[in-house]
Amino acid sequence: MNPKEFLDKNKQKRLDQLFEFLKFPSVSAKSEHKQDIVRCAEWLKDQFNAIGIESKIMPTGGHPVVYGEKITSPDNITVLYYGHYDVQPPEPLELWKSTPFEPIIEGDYILARGATDDKGQLWTHVKAFEAYTATDTRLPINIKVLIEGEEESGSENLERFVKENKDMLKADIIVVSDSAQFDKNQPAVTFGLRGLSFVEIKVTGPDRDLHSGSFGGSIANPINILGRIIGQLHDDDNRIAIDGFYDDVVEITDFEREEFKKLPHTDKEYLKKTGAPALHGEKGYSTLERIWSRPTLDVNGIMGGYQGEGAKTVLPSWAMCKITMRLVPNQDPNDICNKIEKFVQKIAPKSVKCEVFKHGGSPAAVVSNEGPWLDAAGRAVKTGFGIEPVFVKEGGSIPVVGTFKEVLGLDTLLLGWGQSDDNAHSPNERFDLNDFERGTYSALALIEELAKVKA
Amino acid sequence: MNPKEFLDKNKQKRLDQLFEFLKFPSVSAKSEHKQDIVRCAEWLKDQFNAIGIESKIMPTGGHPVVYGEKITSPDNITVLYYGHYDVQPPEPLELWKSTPFEPIIEGDYILARGATDDKGQLWTHVKAFEAYTATDTRLPINIKVLIEGEEESGSENLERFVKENKDMLKADIIVVSDSAQFDKNQPAVTFGLRGLSFVEIKVTGPDRDLHSGSFGGSIANPINILGRIIGQLHDDDNRIAIDGFYDDVVEITDFEREEFKKLPHTDKEYLKKTGAPALHGEKGYSTLERIWSRPTLDVNGIMGGYQGEGAKTVLPSWAMCKITMRLVPNQDPNDICNKIEKFVQKIAPKSVKCEVFKHGGSPAAVVSNEGPWLDAAGRAVKTGFGIEPVFVKEGGSIPVVGTFKEVLGLDTLLLGWGQSDDNAHSPNERFDLNDFERGTYSALALIEELAKVKA
Repeated sequence: MNPKEFLDKNKQKRLDQLFEFLKFPSVSAKSEHKQDIVRCAEWLKDQFNAIGIESKIMPTGGHPVVYGEKITSPDNITVLYYGHYDVQPPEPLELWKSTPFEPIIEGDYILARGATDDKGQLWTHVKAFEAYTATDTRLPINIKVLIEGEEESGSENLERFVKENKDMLKADIIVVSDSAQFDKNQPAVTFGLRGLSFVEIKVTGPDRDLHSGSFGGSIANPINILGRIIGQLHDDDNRIAIDGFYDDVVEITDFEREEFKKLPHTDKEYLKKTGAPALHGEKGYSTLERIWSRPTLDVNGIMGGYQGEGAKTVLPSWAMCKITMRLVPNQDPNDICNKIEKFVQKIAPKSVKCEVFKHGGSPAAVVSNEGPWLDAAGRAVKTGFGIEPVFVKEGGSIPVVGTFKEVLGLDTLLLGWGQSDDNAHSPNERFDLNDFERGTYSALALIEELAKVKA
Repeated sequence: MNPKEFLDKNKQKRLDQLFEFLKFPSVSAKSEHKQDIVRCAEWLKDQFNAIGIESKIMPTGGHPVVYGEKITSPDNITVLYYGHYDVQPPEPLELWKSTPFEPIIEGDYILARGATDDKGQLWTHVKAFEAYTATDTRLPINIKVLIEGEEESGSENLERFVKENKDMLKADIIVVSDSAQFDKNQPAVTFGLRGLSFVEIKVTGPDRDLHSGSFGGSIANPINILGRIIGQLHDDDNRIAIDGFYDDVVEITDFEREEFKKLPHTDKEYLKKTGAPALHGEKGYSTLERIWSRPTLDVNGIMGGYQGEGAKTVLPSWAMCKITMRLVPNQDPNDICNKIEKFVQKIAPKSVKCEVFKHGGSPAAVVSNEGPWLDAAGRAVKTGFGIEPVFVKEGGSIPVVGTFKEVLGLDTLLLGWGQSDDNAHSPNERFDLNDFERGTYSALALIEELAKVKA
């Protein structure tokens, strides 16, 4: 029996095992699930050991990491697989059609918290490894697996873990399946992610809330001022107006522009998904360019003054907002935090105290959009899905990818088997059975394809 | 015992009764306090009846009015006293040194929500009436009392109430104590008030919160847009930039400018009271001109997106803010609401839905700054405080004063016993015990002084 036949034969068993995995309520954000997290990690470790990947549980400052290895030969390339066994909180429960930690099949879908993010996607690789070890087929690569338990609560301890275990994690390439295809039946290989900078701005005027009748018009109103500051962060072309913000931005290449144009994207369909009245973005760029290859600035939250019912004629003491900026390659998250601080302090009037709290962030990540790794990934996806993949970028950020590049010097192949409407982080999270199958066969093909790169 | 001796003798009792009054959480803006409002009105009615002012509760479309009369002779002048038994919401509770509805004495102050605005000030007149009725002293005026329960939420039903009860409310002059002295130990008679317009602006983008990585930069962010709108409401000279906003504004007269200059005001002292780093207001006007005689615009509250700890990379579905504008004589509150709506709709981009909820307001009020009523008020204040009062204007609004002029044709004497740093509308609202006493004796003297005007 060859590995492919093994997968064919064990279709139901692979699914049953995934259901076992999905039953652990491994919610990393909630301390009440600490023991569930540990039980889930133990189970996963046992699964790896059972298929010949020697594994152990390694402590971190928070939830533990499951780490395993199968070293076949020093001549083989080494692939480090990253994934996570923790999940988002399932709330609000009343919006679920099923019970989040009792997986069911509904139509073409596996319905459970973690189905697509990330247990289901991770499982495709685990079962591809097994297809080799269980059939005594020669495994042409060295495998390392690094499965963390804190991805959904910010991967707080992972950077240190990676730094402290640099030697152990040495590899040639990293594979992550924790994202989405471009569309239904349009698989994709992702070659870039945006980075992130996070700041909070607090404007303080009077030392307490004042009566707007007795003081309005003579003392600066922190909400008026914060609004004025936010209003000046973009210019009339919806470009970010912060001095020097674009200094390090790598302009979109002609190659990228052409690739994006080829994609089966229409603004009309995209807009429909959002429910917004019209598109809105930086002048001179298409929608895909705006979300994948251009930096952006969003106020994620704002508060100040009276938020209750009716009117309260107050001149509030303070107002604050939270801002994240999505970054593109070459922008430095700390530099961007410094630039927004400098700009805001420049435009804020002296009649208020203005504080900018800089929380740093993570740089954008790029994998070269050409070269043997990407070619190999493309061929594997084509084998698994029977469809030629497209090469895309992603507007969001996966901080650990930046860490891998920075600490280990490694590129990451982002091979998402999910869909953007899989309800990751929402009620009724799901994973298409067909995507689970095709992802598993792609993971299998990937092993041989990556092995060829070195050859 | 004469009325003055009665006040002397009952000092503690007057205070104890005020504490009873302050214990009602009669917050008119919040529907959860509907029953507290009713209980407070009942209590007040009983207090009036107990001192011989025949009173009843009269329904309105909203919270009820307490109305009472004591008619002594058709030959006496009739004084209509207006006040309000409702209070501002107490939030934010964590900034209070005490519990808002459990009044305490701290140093020289009564500390409680409503202490100065308006329960404490109202109480000075009630106790002045009692000093006559309890001592069987001949009351030289006819008394009418109109105490409403919606002043802090815009007096929405009072105008109709006044119109429907014109005959009942017939009087010669109106007295209101719901404002501040000019300064510590500088009592004042107020001859003008600003008006008010209230709107809420809601900006809606996508039909739900979106991931700012997947959509940021291509879909309008409602907070970004609302900030931009707020930022455009003032120009660089801090003038309001709404088209036509100043069309009907009556410019400050030379007389007013001169009177204001005479007052014992220094910007330094004024600024110190607020704790703000610097003054901030319309170019070309002094502080007193800005707050008394120029229209202003304050955002009183703003909300949208994620307000919790840390970052949440959301592109929020909506953002909203509450805006009140203070008006000067000749500006029409509804016209101003229409003008801001038109302006906001003009500058809002088509990529969001922008709604302006217009809640109307009240016009500015002016009482002639000469004549026998003002002279009588001045003499009464001098008797009660032992200090010659100054004649001033007030930046706040008492909507009903405009209604009284319009519907009943009556001028209003504004005799404030509070201080501008009494924290009306803020945490730790307070009322100086000494002002409470001197206000009560002034209220007593006012009865005799007003009686003389007719004579």
